[in-house]
Amino acid sequence: MRIAILAFDGITALDAVGPYEVLQRVPGAEVVLVGESRGLKRTDTASLAINADRSVSEITSADVIVVPGGFGEQQVRAKPAMLEWVRSIHATTRWTTSVCTGALILGAAGLLKGLAATTHWAALPQLANFGAIPTSARVVEQGKIITAAGVSSGIDMALRLAGRIAGDTMAHAIQVGIEYDPQPPFDGSHQRAPAPVMAILRDFYTRRGLMTE
Amino acid sequence: MRIAILAFDGITALDAVGPYEVLQRVPGAEVVLVGESRGLKRTDTASLAINADRSVSEITSADVIVVPGGFGEQQVRAKPAMLEWVRSIHATTRWTTSVCTGALILGAAGLLKGLAATTHWAALPQLANFGAIPTSARVVEQGKIITAAGVSSGIDMALRLAGRIAGDTMAHAIQVGIEYDPQPPFDGSHQRAPAPVMAILRDFYTRRGLMTE
Repeated sequence: MRIAILAFDGITALDAVGPYEVLQRVPGAEVVLVGESRGLKRTDTASLAINADRSVSEITSADVIVVPGGFGEQQVRAKPAMLEWVRSIHATTRWTTSVCTGALILGAAGLLKGLAATTHWAALPQLANFGAIPTSARVVEQGKIITAAGVSSGIDMALRLAGRIAGDTMAHAIQVGIEYDPQPPFDGSHQRAPAPVMAILRDFYTRRGLMTE
Repeated sequence: MRIAILAFDGITALDAVGPYEVLQRVPGAEVVLVGESRGLKRTDTASLAINADRSVSEITSADVIVVPGGFGEQQVRAKPAMLEWVRSIHATTRWTTSVCTGALILGAAGLLKGLAATTHWAALPQLANFGAIPTSARVVEQGKIITAAGVSSGIDMALRLAGRIAGDTMAHAIQVGIEYDPQPPFDGSHQRAPAPVMAILRDFYTRRGLMTE
């Protein structure tokens, strides 16, 4: 079973590495990081780089594709050849998935028309631009397309997917293996966050162009 | 504020990238991945590589060090020069931290003597070999030394640390920014895991030498 994870400059590292850490533990899985070209892809702050071991021209099919997000997704979306690649891989998959603003890439590729989908809460309204139905949920399944909310939600999405692929006992073992027994220090919901917390985030995402004022 | 994250062949990617994703969002933080030498470091399954942008010889101090784990930590521990580097950086830090079996590196460097500490549940008894007090908790703080449990626990550890560095409002904003509002599909505790789940894990960790029969 081949699992392809898209990598690009401006990726959010955890969007890719959360699902990677889960899915590479699925028995028989062969995970490959795929970029427009081979080589290092830097995160949006440029302080971490992950390697694309293969270029899109080398990968023509996959059982699972994971499309991560990050501020660099806008550049991916602007390239017709990359959207065509996503569509062509999707035609071969058992599961097509996204994390965070990776859903906007799936949307731009035309794969979310008429479907419920999620993404990072700050980008959720944008899904409507692609004919999707913005849905505030951590993971949304619509047939073989699974979208996850922001960044860390890729872990939850991948564990659910591991259950579909390898059964719940194996997926449960993977969760205990990565000791995913969360004890976050704060309430992680943006809907319940206090005003000073949301003020910081609104400022950040407005400056980065993800939210409009 | 310089935050150094150790990278090595055989690293568990999420051990490093969980804390990275949190700490690079701390205002004023400059995160750097540091390896014995510069260049790509492959995870234990070899299917993902992250880049060490600096070598240990280039980094002589840090405000925060994060020591991740993974099966490759045994090779790090076997190198006196690497342990000496960890000790020398520790002498300059405000916070010295580990995730998963990274605690065994801190232990081998002699930094955990007489201290409560945690690591991946499968490796917990090994901490006693270094004079530490094995402590089953997700995050353990002892003065400036903070150890976290397995893999995904580095996210919780880093959020607590972000609160210490930048205050709780900022740390809360970081948590909402990475949408860390977990909805794991299973119970993540190894203590409560059903026998068939633990059988899979005991087999896996025994074959990898982390647990003894």
